[in-house]
Amino acid sequence: MAAFSSICITGASRGLGLEFVKQFLELPQPPRHIFALCRNPEAASELRVLASSHPGVLNVFQLDISDVSQYDGVVQRVSDVVGDAGLNLLINNAGMYNKGIESIKDMTKDELMRHFEVNTVSPILVTKTFLPLLRKAAAQTDESAGAKKAAVAFVSSILGCFSPNIPKNNIYRYTKAALNMVIHGLDIELQPEGISVIGLHPGWVKTDMGGSDGPLEKDFSVRGLKKVLLELGEHNRGKLYQYDGKELNW
Amino acid sequence: MAAFSSICITGASRGLGLEFVKQFLELPQPPRHIFALCRNPEAASELRVLASSHPGVLNVFQLDISDVSQYDGVVQRVSDVVGDAGLNLLINNAGMYNKGIESIKDMTKDELMRHFEVNTVSPILVTKTFLPLLRKAAAQTDESAGAKKAAVAFVSSILGCFSPNIPKNNIYRYTKAALNMVIHGLDIELQPEGISVIGLHPGWVKTDMGGSDGPLEKDFSVRGLKKVLLELGEHNRGKLYQYDGKELNW
Repeated sequence: MAAFSSICITGASRGLGLEFVKQFLELPQPPRHIFALCRNPEAASELRVLASSHPGVLNVFQLDISDVSQYDGVVQRVSDVVGDAGLNLLINNAGMYNKGIESIKDMTKDELMRHFEVNTVSPILVTKTFLPLLRKAAAQTDESAGAKKAAVAFVSSILGCFSPNIPKNNIYRYTKAALNMVIHGLDIELQPEGISVIGLHPGWVKTDMGGSDGPLEKDFSVRGLKKVLLELGEHNRGKLYQYDGKELNW
Repeated sequence: MAAFSSICITGASRGLGLEFVKQFLELPQPPRHIFALCRNPEAASELRVLASSHPGVLNVFQLDISDVSQYDGVVQRVSDVVGDAGLNLLINNAGMYNKGIESIKDMTKDELMRHFEVNTVSPILVTKTFLPLLRKAAAQTDESAGAKKAAVAFVSSILGCFSPNIPKNNIYRYTKAALNMVIHGLDIELQPEGISVIGLHPGWVKTDMGGSDGPLEKDFSVRGLKKVLLELGEHNRGKLYQYDGKELNW
């Protein structure tokens, strides 16, 4: 069986999340199950078209990552599909950035708290919630899968890195620095349970969040990040990689 | 005049904050004004005793840093004392750590949000609120003060650093990694306004927060951090220093 028999992606209705879904479906040996989580499946027309052309493979489930009351329900729905095989890969992709907030002068408590909630706190809690399913996958006996038996990827950013020094001070950087520390620390905690953690930097991509000025196309960025995930091993867990496979310094 | 004619410290009723107040009062040339901010001045008996023996110098004002509705009032009270001279140094010392939360298994949304609120978001907002007074100090004509004319210090931690790798995953590390990014980015933003930013790592100190196992005494740690502040210059702004004067890698 190919690596990652089952994959769950948050924020999957558009941008990088939707592109991940498309590219995993197009693999020569696609995953047996893909779970595309998004806030509003009704409005996710592209996802729904994909789901109808991939019955039994692509499942579109509703999840607003900032609403913890929805967590148990969505984990149960995923569990009902994967059963004892568990979940092999969780991609924490959902995030936000209100580009109006570049300066401390423009920062408000609501905006700061909301960015930490969506970009840092919710990915931690979503991961915590899926741990029982990831542990089931880690307990499978197929030793050839190695670090790929059970893994958590976080879509983070080089903007959360201290080096190189980017002369930019904004709310997004703070939340991604914290998320990078989550990646760094969580891999150490989950390693004994057979669960790998990895961070991904997509580059500056043309998306609704990245804007139209980004130099990279979605399909190019995700092709590179997907390769990083498919090559995940003991040597690169707990680290941050950009779209071209280069490891980034924190 | 000695460096830092006026100093404002949050979380000043105990631990490192109270020790900063004591040691600044004991300087051969103490600041003209020290503002000790704390949540509950009524209960801060040590501060009140100090204030009565240093009338006109030590002012104890009430501030819960997580209650933004109190900000304007406390800034007005400080402004009434310092007038056009402005505020020379703000020390963002208040912070929290619920030591029960070391593992992702124990993390809840409330605890995560509360730690980010107190350790990261509130220091940003307190700093934003004091900017007008810091700008007044920066506009003073005493060129000999240099980077010390107007400065903001954040009490952060090596636990927020990525290097060296500490095999510990906890809520405190995430919030201090984000705070370190604030220090890093904010100095770049405030430099053109003549305001310096610096980060301080107190070490593991015997305090209510650090517990009784810490190897360092409060007076030792703060003596070193005070020296870092008094030696603040263009060469060390925007960086993180530990109690012995050593610069830390992020």
